[in-house]
Amino acid sequence: MNEQVDPVIRARAVQAARGAAAFDLLLAGGTVVDVATGELRAADVGIVGTLIASVHPQGAREDAPAVEDVAGRFLAPGFIDSHLHYESSLMAPVDYASVVVPAGTTTCVWDPHELANVLGLDGVRWAIEVSRDLPLRTLIAAPSCVPSAPGLELAGAEIGAAEMTDMLRWPEVVGVAEVMDMPGVLRGTAHMRGIVGAGLASGKNVNGHARGMRDADLQAYATAGVTSDHEIVEAEDFLQKLRAGMTVELRGSHDYVLPGVLTALATLPLLPPNLVLCTDDVFPDELVAKGGLRDTISRVIARGVSPVAAIRMTTLHAAMRLKRDDLGLVAPGRQADIVVLSDLPSVAVERVVAAGRVVAREGRLLSTLPRPHGARDTPLAHVPRGTMKLSPQPREAFELRVGGAGRAKLRKVVGARYTSWGEVEVELRDGVVQIPRGHAAITMIHRHGRAPAVPRTCLADGWGAPRGAIATTIAHDSHNLLVLGRDPDDMQAAANALIACGGGMAVAERGQVTALLPLPIAGLLAETPAAETAAGFAKLREAADRVMEWQPPFRVFRGLTGISLACNPGPHPTDLGLTDGGTGEVFDPAETLDA
Amino acid sequence: MNEQVDPVIRARAVQAARGAAAFDLLLAGGTVVDVATGELRAADVGIVGTLIASVHPQGAREDAPAVEDVAGRFLAPGFIDSHLHYESSLMAPVDYASVVVPAGTTTCVWDPHELANVLGLDGVRWAIEVSRDLPLRTLIAAPSCVPSAPGLELAGAEIGAAEMTDMLRWPEVVGVAEVMDMPGVLRGTAHMRGIVGAGLASGKNVNGHARGMRDADLQAYATAGVTSDHEIVEAEDFLQKLRAGMTVELRGSHDYVLPGVLTALATLPLLPPNLVLCTDDVFPDELVAKGGLRDTISRVIARGVSPVAAIRMTTLHAAMRLKRDDLGLVAPGRQADIVVLSDLPSVAVERVVAAGRVVAREGRLLSTLPRPHGARDTPLAHVPRGTMKLSPQPREAFELRVGGAGRAKLRKVVGARYTSWGEVEVELRDGVVQIPRGHAAITMIHRHGRAPAVPRTCLADGWGAPRGAIATTIAHDSHNLLVLGRDPDDMQAAANALIACGGGMAVAERGQVTALLPLPIAGLLAETPAAETAAGFAKLREAADRVMEWQPPFRVFRGLTGISLACNPGPHPTDLGLTDGGTGEVFDPAETLDA
Repeated sequence: MNEQVDPVIRARAVQAARGAAAFDLLLAGGTVVDVATGELRAADVGIVGTLIASVHPQGAREDAPAVEDVAGRFLAPGFIDSHLHYESSLMAPVDYASVVVPAGTTTCVWDPHELANVLGLDGVRWAIEVSRDLPLRTLIAAPSCVPSAPGLELAGAEIGAAEMTDMLRWPEVVGVAEVMDMPGVLRGTAHMRGIVGAGLASGKNVNGHARGMRDADLQAYATAGVTSDHEIVEAEDFLQKLRAGMTVELRGSHDYVLPGVLTALATLPLLPPNLVLCTDDVFPDELVAKGGLRDTISRVIARGVSPVAAIRMTTLHAAMRLKRDDLGLVAPGRQADIVVLSDLPSVAVERVVAAGRVVAREGRLLSTLPRPHGARDTPLAHVPRGTMKLSPQPREAFELRVGGAGRAKLRKVVGARYTSWGEVEVELRDGVVQIPRGHAAITMIHRHGRAPAVPRTCLADGWGAPRGAIATTIAHDSHNLLVLGRDPDDMQAAANALIACGGGMAVAERGQVTALLPLPIAGLLAETPAAETAAGFAKLREAADRVMEWQPPFRVFRGLTGISLACNPGPHPTDLGLTDGGTGEVFDPAETLDA
Repeated sequence: MNEQVDPVIRARAVQAARGAAAFDLLLAGGTVVDVATGELRAADVGIVGTLIASVHPQGAREDAPAVEDVAGRFLAPGFIDSHLHYESSLMAPVDYASVVVPAGTTTCVWDPHELANVLGLDGVRWAIEVSRDLPLRTLIAAPSCVPSAPGLELAGAEIGAAEMTDMLRWPEVVGVAEVMDMPGVLRGTAHMRGIVGAGLASGKNVNGHARGMRDADLQAYATAGVTSDHEIVEAEDFLQKLRAGMTVELRGSHDYVLPGVLTALATLPLLPPNLVLCTDDVFPDELVAKGGLRDTISRVIARGVSPVAAIRMTTLHAAMRLKRDDLGLVAPGRQADIVVLSDLPSVAVERVVAAGRVVAREGRLLSTLPRPHGARDTPLAHVPRGTMKLSPQPREAFELRVGGAGRAKLRKVVGARYTSWGEVEVELRDGVVQIPRGHAAITMIHRHGRAPAVPRTCLADGWGAPRGAIATTIAHDSHNLLVLGRDPDDMQAAANALIACGGGMAVAERGQVTALLPLPIAGLLAETPAAETAAGFAKLREAADRVMEWQPPFRVFRGLTGISLACNPGPHPTDLGLTDGGTGEVFDPAETLDA
């Protein structure tokens, strides 16, 4: 639903458009990127309050107390990021906005999935509260998979149909966030029918996560009522999803997918209106360096899509997906969110107008946004710290004990992201498994206080043999404490550093912490400004690079935080054990197999 | 908002898509017109209940109790008519549906503007009741201009912001219907701000009527919150409206506009998603002969638009305008409304599937729809007859008396549709104006019983000198009794025939009625089946042709029923006198002017 505009402002805008009143702000001398018609048109833009009041011939009007000279510049609609998790940037909304708004993003659809997995509905409420009043319009998608693999993991909360119905009543919530429990949807479990059904009953969007889905399964998934997907892996599923009428939220976070997909797009007779862009997950240092969605748009253009078409996807198409006709165009009556570009193909953002005000120039916000997060007088205005409900762990927590002596055969996780089951024979000393050559150990510990904190350690093949340990409280999707390493001393040091600081990410070598990024908000988000968080994460990456002997192509942290994603098929370690999202099985990683 | 689908049907459709259950109906061997990608794709379509469950490779599935062989045929989404008035067809919804559904229209956005001007909100309620359960999905737009020219005419009812707010709460109502009071919107009258404001607050569409509007006025009209227009007159306003982000509802009822408009469309770099098709007003004989929207689509294609693009406009684009993602595509999870075409460029409709059932073949519905209109047990289930609140009129009612003798100078209406003011000297006999050579008289009489029935007779230049009289109770927009003629005997005969039969249209010559089409429902709609109504109207046209010496290019009845459209600038006769929508003036047509 469109934003309600103050009727007084609208009435004044109507009179200004007619010439019977002055504009508040005039953007003069620019070229409008008309994403409706595809034209580049010389035009001035008159703004009143938060509204575009008029788009008219250059020089026709001069009556405005403020005139912004945009001669030689392009005026594009504010960019809309159709699907993302602020949490991936490790930044609170205020800090996230400080980075992406100067890069042209004025609207985001935020699925606070990670916050919800730690804090439940309180996390979603906090997300709403702290993203109000930002120059970044934040629309909330209600997390649908908390936990994403029921029975295979224990998150900080559980969301069912009743909770979903609650959230969908909140005006800030624009739909059901990515429906990850694909098997549940296909099998038609009562749980997933309830959640999707709540979305359908609300009339709001039901967004998807159709990883690797195609053919009959894809048809079934769409028929269930899910109408979008961002998990494109190649040209074939991209085309199948467009043809199924799903809105494809093409993401920039997986650059290797773009060439094939955009080549396929070029073969289509018409530009599909159900194609939008999104960032999904961007780490803080990348975000600060490249600006998120702006970078995605420029890469889409570099792959041969015309600048106007690429910008249309992420503006008008996105607005249509959101069922809003007050966004997505530089046109009268729309929200005055405008990106001033000095160059079109490279998407060089020079200035940004949000809600009618020039808010950024040359990559910087013009005013500092108020901190700390959550100033409003609501039960949730406080910052949700203290989610690390775990005492310091002894060294033994990071050992894998099977009892007995000699040798034993155990299950192992093969691969870093697309995992498969394997077996390995190990040596035992006093009942403790000696991590085999070339292997790593992964310990998961429940940190939400909803069950005893029993450490579960398993063997992982595909990470090489770490020369230290990495610990993280970001561990999709339940965000329990995850520690990767070989030496229990290193693992203990990294883990206890996080337990002490309320969560975050840490690297340890030779029993000492070498890098620590505290994420005190829910163990997920930093409280530091964006640049500081980015720098801290870059240091963490360097420290991790020293520890890891092998770098997966998608980087250690993307792999590590995703290794516990139990909704995916194949083995995944969780706080409950070694699980398989394909079969629904849970194994004790210490269970020995017959030789 | 999307239609709610029975969860049991949806669950079965999901299992059918996966192959775990059979379809109810399979359309086998056809080519899907994929209006998302622009492709023509060989594919079979599996249907469960009212839903498309699966679109899959030809021959992949055969498990369905009913298989429809569509080899060599094209499968397009059901056509959506984005703006029309059933009343223009003189048919009740059941009869209208019997004509347009076999021609491929499965969804209509009906503005029951004429019913509302006679019956107020009761007319809208009746429209809703009698269009339920048809194979034609009827979405209601809430009439916004009742009357369309407040102060210049007296309609049967008045609709203000409170009534609009009421109607917008009804689930069948999808938005505010065409906002015709353009001056009111531009000047920002409290009345129009209230009505448009109700629409904006509801989150539903606010549809426009921006006749001749462009430049600053158009910007102001869009900024007021109106987001569509169907009153395109030429390429320039067409382009300006698309650029303003308004949804252009390009209509087939004004064929002469299409060439210029579609030539302009071809110059645009991208196909605007804010371009849809509509019929607006189609007379019954034309409707029966050509099928309405189908005819419009074929003419758009004949003017050079690709068939897939033309069909996209009237399916996917229309669905997006309606903010519905359950319509507009042959794709899984969408409503099973499918048009089977034997030829694409000519839009040759062979079969029609609506809500999952084959409902029409070879231009005919497969089953007769239940009559009479309004079978439900509601206060409005009765047919609204008896709206002719007027006694038989004496001959004198059709004379123009100014008093005195000799000669007098009077105002006159020049032109038949785009009218202008004129003056004429007339001869008087016993105070009665002798209609000058080449002129006609128009008498308007209030028929709604809301004021005394004072006949108002004026002089009209532009209709030639009628050899008889034509009377109609369809007289936009207040639908008072309108009689055109020269001889008071003829005019009396035609008028009293309508008063006797509860309204309609009549032609009289030499004091005798030569053709009569009763429209007992509100004085607007026939109760006869479509073919009978069409034949009756054709006879009326023939009788009128004998009476009229001059045929305006848009035909006598279109001109005649529109001559009283007081919201337009220039002179228009109403029940209150001679009015001017441009200046807001009302004159007594008997007022003599200085010589």
